[in-house]
This record gives sequence, structure tokens and C-alpha cells, in this order.
Amino acid sequence: MVKITFPDGSVREYEQGVTGYQIAESISPALARDVVSCGVNGETVELNRPINEDATIALYKFDDEEGKHTFWHTSAHLLAEALQELYPGIQFGFGPAIENGFFYDVMLPNGQAISENDFPKIEEKMRELAKKNEQVVRRDVSKADAVKEFTADGQEYKVEHIVQDLEDGTISTYTQGSFTDLCRGPHLMSTGAIKAIKITSVAGAFWRGDAKREQMTRIYGISFPKKKMLDEYLVMLEEAKKRDHRKIGKEMELFMFSDRVGKGLPIWLPKGTQLRLRLQELLRRLLRPYNYQEVITPGIGGKNLYVTSGHYAHYGKDSFQPIHTPEEDEEYMLKPMNCPHHCEVYAYKPRSYKDLPLRIAEFGTVFRYEKSGELHGLTRVRTFTQDDAHIFVRPDQVKAEFENNIDIILKVFKTFGFDNYEAQISLRDPNDKEKYIGSDEVWEESEAAIKAACEEKGLKARVELGEAAFYGPKLDFMVKDAIGRRWQLGTIQVDYNLPNRFKLEYTAEDNTKKTPVMIHRAPFGSLERFTAVLIEHTAGHFPLWLTPDQVAILPISEKYNDYARKVKAYFDAHEVRSIMDDRNEKIGRKIRDNELKRVPYMVIVGEKEAAEGLVSMRQQGGGEQATMTMEEFAKRINDEVADQLKTLD
Amino acid sequence: MVKITFPDGSVREYEQGVTGYQIAESISPALARDVVSCGVNGETVELNRPINEDATIALYKFDDEEGKHTFWHTSAHLLAEALQELYPGIQFGFGPAIENGFFYDVMLPNGQAISENDFPKIEEKMRELAKKNEQVVRRDVSKADAVKEFTADGQEYKVEHIVQDLEDGTISTYTQGSFTDLCRGPHLMSTGAIKAIKITSVAGAFWRGDAKREQMTRIYGISFPKKKMLDEYLVMLEEAKKRDHRKIGKEMELFMFSDRVGKGLPIWLPKGTQLRLRLQELLRRLLRPYNYQEVITPGIGGKNLYVTSGHYAHYGKDSFQPIHTPEEDEEYMLKPMNCPHHCEVYAYKPRSYKDLPLRIAEFGTVFRYEKSGELHGLTRVRTFTQDDAHIFVRPDQVKAEFENNIDIILKVFKTFGFDNYEAQISLRDPNDKEKYIGSDEVWEESEAAIKAACEEKGLKARVELGEAAFYGPKLDFMVKDAIGRRWQLGTIQVDYNLPNRFKLEYTAEDNTKKTPVMIHRAPFGSLERFTAVLIEHTAGHFPLWLTPDQVAILPISEKYNDYARKVKAYFDAHEVRSIMDDRNEKIGRKIRDNELKRVPYMVIVGEKEAAEGLVSMRQQGGGEQATMTMEEFAKRINDEVADQLKTLD
Repeated sequence: MVKITFPDGSVREYEQGVTGYQIAESISPALARDVVSCGVNGETVELNRPINEDATIALYKFDDEEGKHTFWHTSAHLLAEALQELYPGIQFGFGPAIENGFFYDVMLPNGQAISENDFPKIEEKMRELAKKNEQVVRRDVSKADAVKEFTADGQEYKVEHIVQDLEDGTISTYTQGSFTDLCRGPHLMSTGAIKAIKITSVAGAFWRGDAKREQMTRIYGISFPKKKMLDEYLVMLEEAKKRDHRKIGKEMELFMFSDRVGKGLPIWLPKGTQLRLRLQELLRRLLRPYNYQEVITPGIGGKNLYVTSGHYAHYGKDSFQPIHTPEEDEEYMLKPMNCPHHCEVYAYKPRSYKDLPLRIAEFGTVFRYEKSGELHGLTRVRTFTQDDAHIFVRPDQVKAEFENNIDIILKVFKTFGFDNYEAQISLRDPNDKEKYIGSDEVWEESEAAIKAACEEKGLKARVELGEAAFYGPKLDFMVKDAIGRRWQLGTIQVDYNLPNRFKLEYTAEDNTKKTPVMIHRAPFGSLERFTAVLIEHTAGHFPLWLTPDQVAILPISEKYNDYARKVKAYFDAHEVRSIMDDRNEKIGRKIRDNELKRVPYMVIVGEKEAAEGLVSMRQQGGGEQATMTMEEFAKRINDEVADQLKTLD
Repeated sequence: MVKITFPDGSVREYEQGVTGYQIAESISPALARDVVSCGVNGETVELNRPINEDATIALYKFDDEEGKHTFWHTSAHLLAEALQELYPGIQFGFGPAIENGFFYDVMLPNGQAISENDFPKIEEKMRELAKKNEQVVRRDVSKADAVKEFTADGQEYKVEHIVQDLEDGTISTYTQGSFTDLCRGPHLMSTGAIKAIKITSVAGAFWRGDAKREQMTRIYGISFPKKKMLDEYLVMLEEAKKRDHRKIGKEMELFMFSDRVGKGLPIWLPKGTQLRLRLQELLRRLLRPYNYQEVITPGIGGKNLYVTSGHYAHYGKDSFQPIHTPEEDEEYMLKPMNCPHHCEVYAYKPRSYKDLPLRIAEFGTVFRYEKSGELHGLTRVRTFTQDDAHIFVRPDQVKAEFENNIDIILKVFKTFGFDNYEAQISLRDPNDKEKYIGSDEVWEESEAAIKAACEEKGLKARVELGEAAFYGPKLDFMVKDAIGRRWQLGTIQVDYNLPNRFKLEYTAEDNTKKTPVMIHRAPFGSLERFTAVLIEHTAGHFPLWLTPDQVAILPISEKYNDYARKVKAYFDAHEVRSIMDDRNEKIGRKIRDNELKRVPYMVIVGEKEAAEGLVSMRQQGGGEQATMTMEEFAKRINDEVADQLKTLD
């Protein structure tokens, strides 16, 4: 018998050689139907892999990330099988699961090409093969046999990959039907679970991503266990296109990019800058009760700073290269993160236990080199501003700081309407403690503190072993946006490493010198990424307190422009942000144009309004309409803003 | 006869060969006594240089910058003459006038050294020589003769300089008494005007500033035409030491430097950051009536951006070197100025005459490479944040924008108590128009607009011909601080160059495409430099609205700490910035310690105060004392702040 430990800590005994599928069956037929793959001692494997020793197990459904990965990986093989039937002589490169679906890189025979017109044919063939519900069979073969086998199949890219990249010894292949792939797995037990398939796009891709090698055809697809899920996904995709923050950012004139300034270097336009400054003010307000100390540190730092921090050794090659000053032989780096600078702030004078926690905050602008092909709007950029802070604490203060920051992050979610969120506690791998820096004692103390803080705050967090950084455990937050997409927002991390590397210390109550623990945290992550997520979540319909323009003033005709200006001046003086549409256009046209601008209110002014000091309000999207004095309207706006921000108190 | 034109535009006739001194005599004996040198057609020359053609003339006294320069230049020669008598065999390097006095670099014979103990002896010898009132005689000699002469004198550095740096042809020497120097001049007519002399310091300096060459001894001094002026200068120097912003910045924990972060890269500490953010908010408030559009642009830009702007050709070598990304072969530069980025903002969409003036503002952080020896606290740094804006206007809008900005700059001066200021209009050299870009017509229009704007605003500004930048005329402001030092603060500049280089345009009323004029302006210059000047001006006693901590709360003993915390909570909730001194110390000690901290108010709380909800206020520096309720005190602070900021309205 073997002892199987479940994620909730419960333990059951099974016969030796039991499989994940059998374990699922032993729990419920419904689970056996939905389970896709399983985690054995933290490694994701097939459901039919026999378990011969005591182990921990996690059963993954499609809804789990690991489940999706398995499902889409098998779907990539199914795509390859279909292509092999449709295009005999086709050669295969790599075919992985990705964040949303899968792709396969192929070299089509005889200069053939694949276009959108071919997608239905490929989907049809995949469905046909899936219906056969072919078994996916794993085999372990020697490297030599694998070379022989794939050479016989004419798969020269596979052969190159085996010869050049893989170590000698046993390697694995997976076969379903007539298709065999070199693959580490894991896979579905059979292809029948793949019920809904969509080929989404086709693109060129160099073999091995190397521009000097052959260009292959990359075919992207996505698949689901239910037809309904695909339909929902396609609707979501359409909706996502409409919400694309790059498109809305342009329409609302929030930010721009310039070729001359450079790729991935966003310029915040006036309306975007106002929005960003408002986000910053919101955070400052949120931090006020916690005695954060804001600092401003320079955008560059001596290379030695990052050698000390260890960042240079880890990330130096992937960063922007250092700037050399030939005159004085110094090297400076664009600041890739703020922590080393904040360690220097900590160290600039002696600290005592009474000074802790010391909370050093900064809207810190950092630079990271990303390949231009990987840049994307505001979510993947080469410079961004973190809402960063580093909290230096005594070990016994870790729990309270996590509690504070859980409060802050949840207030942020509430304020922005992210009602749907998950949290994950990432702990050490208890079987591989050497990977981590810091003593057993401090790790245990911090891990317990994080769990206790979550409990105290009623925050349900899933616990993942082995997911901690080498320098400390952490708590991450994930939100679901209005159309169901998941975004990582908010992180709180313990760090035992930097305080040691910078030799930081404080005088303890017993007059000895001790090393503080450092906590990194960022509720937004970065202002750029948060703004992008917020645009996609709200489709640009920002909450009233945040939106660049709250009211558009529309005079019915030019005769009322003077009164409209008076209204605008009143709004300006009463913290109502307004724009005026004094074009010489019909009022109907003005209303239609301003409906598109995502301005939450319009006020229309004509003869009656001008005569009686009124405004005729009209909510965006054909909402409420009412006539009131301009004072009443301004008060309404101010009240609504105050109401939206009361989550902060 | 020759026609001599004076700065006020008046013209007088003199005999051909008249000298500046004779012209001064013809005006008044007092002027002849005080005049030091003169400007003939914009070039500063000796008073005894004959004028043989029609010319413009300016007569410089010691109070004028040009006068000081001449005076101190001759003083440097006097120092050299004294050293030659005291240290026979001495060799001379360079000996220029500097901002405050002069220095001479010398190589002392036989390994001798000069220390502070030698200063009186040197001063005495200089005074003795000055009393002789020796004539300073200029001679023009050939390069060959100069080499011969200085070789004979054993002046090998002078010879090296002549041979390596000077072009063939005539060069000039100046002789007084037994000392002859290679020099372009100009000089005093004789040394007798130098009445008060102080040798101020001695330092090492490499010959030619080259660390691979010999180290020489640099002797600094200063001199004046009156003893009283030297006395005042020495008092000012003492006072300046006390006000040194580097010292006060450290004491008040406003900013720091870190060797690991790098030289000249300031870190704003929490109290400094608060102060800086308050300065930024003040400026935003000042700009609000003028419809400035704030943007945020990245800290780096593609090299091509600066090639387009022309900055790369002009300043590229002196900047931080470009960062190369080997993967994509791009080059990025640390942003040395914000204007090119703002041109890209202008250009990102079509602009019409109705959109102008377009005022793009940014607290823009820039980077400039400075030699580490030239760095100084916050006044000379390698990164700083400009309170920058670029205003794109039609040519007919230049005057109104200058008026707006004169208002803004004067409001800044008033708010910070810089009551003593000067303004200078820098125009083209009318005799050298080819140096400048832009047509005669636009230059004349702008120059007239600047003059008219100053007149409109009642701003007396001195007009300097030939001081304009090649790209446009400008208006600069100079303030005198509390101890009489002059600081350049505030600038408004016209630019015809960048709009052309970036091919910026707008659609004019007649539907043609026109090029906008650009105006650069910065009321503070940079937040770093302005903060430094403000610290030295106020000696760290900032106005109440700005100062990091407004009140220190001092409980008489630990018994009243609870009440003190209640007071603090009340202050926190009512926008009074307070710190608490709850150390276990006698109240007398607490008062003394807090007197040193430059916190404008203390409130002392004991039994009576706690019982009755009172605070006992004590103004810093032994000012007013009074007892009042905490509400009354908070109101007093808020009222005082409001009163200080009413200059803004």
C-alpha cells in the first residue's frame, strides 16, 4: 500500500501502482470525468502514471492552470496529427501549450502555405481524430533510438533538437494514432476529451527563434472540453478586442508611443497624466495611516550597487547595458528596481528597534530591457513606475505588516471594483531547503506569519509549496476582470537576502546588532500595467473620481456659449472636471459625439437653463436625465466622488 | 572724430584715438575714479586702448560682472608678481579670474610648499606691490618671440602652452613691475586700485587638469577696491558657511548621497520628498489658470531623437554615453532635456491655430554628465528634475506668453521672499545676424514682444545685445538672496530651431501649414537647485506652508504622552504637520533640542494643558508664547499657511 496525501492534508491508502485516474474515481465519478492530469509530489504527470511510493497528490481539472496546460499540450499534438494527414511530408518544429491555447511550428512540404481559408479544414480533421478518442501512449526510448526513429520519419528538426539539445540517456515520446512526438509530457490519457477546437491564427516563426534559420509556419489554436466554453471564449475575445487598452488609450488620448523616443517607452499624455497622478494620490491616501515615508531616488545607479545586491549577476545580461563614463571610468545602470536604492536609504544612519517598521515608499521608475517583439501597450514596456515600498521590520513584525498590506490591497480592489480575486501563498519546497537563503527558523516564522495574517483578515489563500522566491515566501493576488480574464495584481514578499547583502542592521532592545527582514510590496504593481488592466476592466468607463473628464458641457447653440463658459468656470472652481463642446454643430450631433468619449455626464444648456441658472444633465449611455441648478449638479458630482472613495476610510 | 554710442542709445563725438578712461573723465571725475574696464563693440578691453572708429561703449565699474573680471584678473597677476618675489624660480601655469576672486596655479621651486601660515606674507607682499601702483602694459609679440622670452625666464609651462595651444601670429603679454604674463587681458591700467586682498585657500591641481601631468599648487584669493567690501565679503562668507545647503540638508534630513548609488545623484529623503512634492504642488497651482497640460515622458530616448533635435551633435560628447542594445542594435540616451520629447507630443496629432498656445508641462527628470570634481550638493548634480514647459505659439502670441510667465516667476519670487531681483533681456548681436537661425522678421517681432511684455508688467530689464542663444532671444531672472549672493532663477526663451528640426506645424486660419514658435520656460530651473537656493536663502527656516514639520509636541513628562498623542492625532486630522518628542528627557532639554531643528513652533503639554484641552505654544527662536486650545492652535497654523499662499491668487 502507498499513502497518498491530498492538498487539504488528508491522507488515504491505496494499492501500490495506483494511478491518478483511479484515485479520482475513488472519490467520485464526476471528478474522474473532469480530471485532466495530476500533480505527484509537485510534478504534473499523466493520469495513468502508476504511483509506487507514498506521495502528495493534486488532481487537476481544466479549470486549473496545470490542467489547461496538459489539455492544450495534447491539443497541439492533435493539431500536428491532423496536419500530418492533411499535408503528408510536413515537418514539425516545436508545439507547446501557451497561456491561451497552443501552437505548432511546421515546415509545409513543397512550398505549400496555410491561410485562414484552411482553418475550417484543419479544425474538421482535428474533430474527426478527437472523436476516435485515441490513447496517448508514452514510451521511454534511448537517444540513439529516438534519432533513428525520427530520421526514418524525415523529421529533421526533431533530429536536430535531439542531437543538439538533449543529454544522453532516456527520452520520452508520445504517440496517438499515427502521430508520434518527441515530448516530455504530460498529456491527456486520450484525445476524446477535446470537444471544441478553434484554429485562431497563422504566422511566420524562425526555427529556434533564430532569424538566421529557416522560417516556419506557426499555427495557433485553442480548445476546450465543452462547446459552450469555446463559444464563451470567442465572445470574450471579441469583447477583449473592444476593450484593448491600446485602442482605448488612443481614443481617450491617455498615452502614446513615438518611434523616435523608442519602442516600449510610453509617453503619458495630459489626460493620462491626470489619471496617473490621481492614482498616485489615491495610493498616498491609502498609505497615510501606516506611516510610509516617501522618497525619490535617481533613475540610475552605480553598477556596484547591483553587484552588491546580486541583481547584476542574476539579471545583468538581460538588462539595459551599463553606461560607461570614459572620463572617470565609472559604470552606471538604468535602475532596474528600487530595492537597492532603498537599502542605501535604510543604511544612511544608525537604526534602532524603535525605528522599525521603517516603511520606505517610492513611485519608482525603473527600466527593463525587453525584446521589441515582446512589448505590448502598457502591459509590457521598457520603462514603468512601480508603486513600490520596502518595509524593514523585526522578524516579529512580519505578520502585522502582511495584515496592513492585505488591507491596502483589498481596499484597492474594492475601490476599483475588482470583486473577484484570488490569493496565493508561495512557500518553500520543504524537500529542497538548500535552494533558499535564510535559516529554517526565520522561514518557519515568516511562513506561519503570512498564513496567520491571511486567517486574521479572512483572506482565503491557496498555499503552494516550492513557489517561494529563493529569498523568501510571498503572497500574490490575482483578479478576474469584467470579462473573466485573470491578471496578477498586488504582491507582498519577504526578503532575507538583500538586508544581508547590504549588511543592514539595527540595534535590538538587548543592544546587540540584528539584521532586519525586508518586505517588498506593490498594490498596483506598476502604474502602467494597472492603468492597462483598469482600461480593459472598465472598457475606459472609469469611476467618476478617476476619469479624466467628468462632464461635457454642450450649449444648444452658439448663443449659449457665454452661459456655458459661466457654467464651466463654476465647475472649475468647485472641483468638477469639465470640457466644453462649443462647436457650431446641432445638439443631437454633439450628444452623439460625446456619448463616444466615455465622459460620464453631459450637461446641456439652452435658453431656459441660461435664464434660470440651470443645467440639463444626461448620464452617459442613455442613463438618468434631470434638470437642476449648476450648484446642485456640482454637489451631486462631489457627493458621488466622495461616495466612491469612502472605501478608503 | 569718432561717434561713441552709449548703452542708453545716446551718441557723443570724440577725437579719434580717445580711450575709455578719457570718455569716463568727460562724463564725471567720480566715474573716472570708479571705472575698471570698458566694453567696446561688445568686447571688454583696457581703459587705455585707443578707439579709432565709431563704436558702442559700456563703462564697467567693479560692481559690473565685466569689471569684477578685469579687477580679479589683474589681481591674479599681482599674486603672481608677489609669488615671484617670494619664491624665486617659481613657475607659473594658468591664473584666471573666477566667479569669486581669482587663482594662480604654480610650481614651487625646490619642493617648497605653501600653507595657510604663508597667506599673510603673500597678502602683505601683494599690498606692497599694489601700493606702487605699477602700470600694466600690454605688448603684442610674435609667437616665436614669446617662446624665446618665456624660455629665457624658465617658464616651461607657459612655453608648452604657447607651442601647443596657440595659433601662429601675434599674441599678447602684460607686464607690471618685474612680472610679465602671457595673457589676452584685459587688465586694469595700473595695480593701485587693488586696495583689499585676501588669500583664501590653497589646493592641488593638475597642470592642464590632466591627472597624468604634474600636480601644481593652486592659490585662491579675492580682492576689492575698498577695505569695507572685503570685510563685508568675509562676514558673508562666514554666514554662507552656516547656510551651506549641504550641511543643512544633512541636519534636516532632506537629502543624501550614496557612494554606491553614485556621485552627483541625490536621493530625496522623506522630509525632502515632502518638501519637493509641496514645491511641485505650488507650481501646479500657479499654472492652473494658464491651462498647462502636464505630461510624463520616459527617462531615456532613442539617439535618433537627439540627432533630430541637434542636441547630439552639440552636446553628445559631454553627455552620458548612449546605451546600446546588442540584440536589436538600438541606441538610447539618458534624457538630457525634455524638449525633444515634448516636440513628439506636439506632433502626435494634427494641430490647428485654435489649439495654440499649447502648453506642455512636465516635472521632467534629466541627466547630464558632469565631472565629479565639478559636482556640488544639489546645485551641480548629474540628475535633476526641471519644472519644465514648452509652449507652442503663433508668432503673435509670444508677448502674451511672456507676460503670463513674468507673472508666474514674480509670484514665485514673492512667495519665497526673493524681493531683490534683476531681469535681463538677451537679444541678437545686430552686427552678426548670420549666427542666428530664423528670419529677421520673426526675430524683430519676438524681441519687440519681449520688451513690450516687460514694459506691460512694469519689469525693469537690462537689455544685452549678442547674449541671445542662436535659436532665439530670452529673458532671464537673477535673485539676490538674504546674504546678497546672486542666483540665476527663472528663464523664458524663444526657440525657432526645434520646431523646424521636428517639422512641427499647425493649420493656420487661412488653411496653410505654418511652423509654431516654441517657448521654453522654467520658473524654478530645477527642483534640486531651487531647493538648494531656498535652503541657503532661508538658512533652513522655510516658510510655514513648506517646512517639513510645522510643530514639535513636547510633553512635560511621560505622564502626558497620552495627551500629547491625542494632540498629534488632532493635528494629523487638521492638516498640521507635527512631530512628537516623547523622549524621557527634561522639558528644558527638549526645548533646547527642538530649537535646533528649525521647527517653527513647539507646543508644550503638561497637567494644565491635558486637563483643559490646551497647548502652550512657543515660537521658534524665542518668539511669541501663548496658551490656547488645540483647535485654536490648529486654526492659527492653517490661517498662517493660507496667508503665506495668498500671493498665489
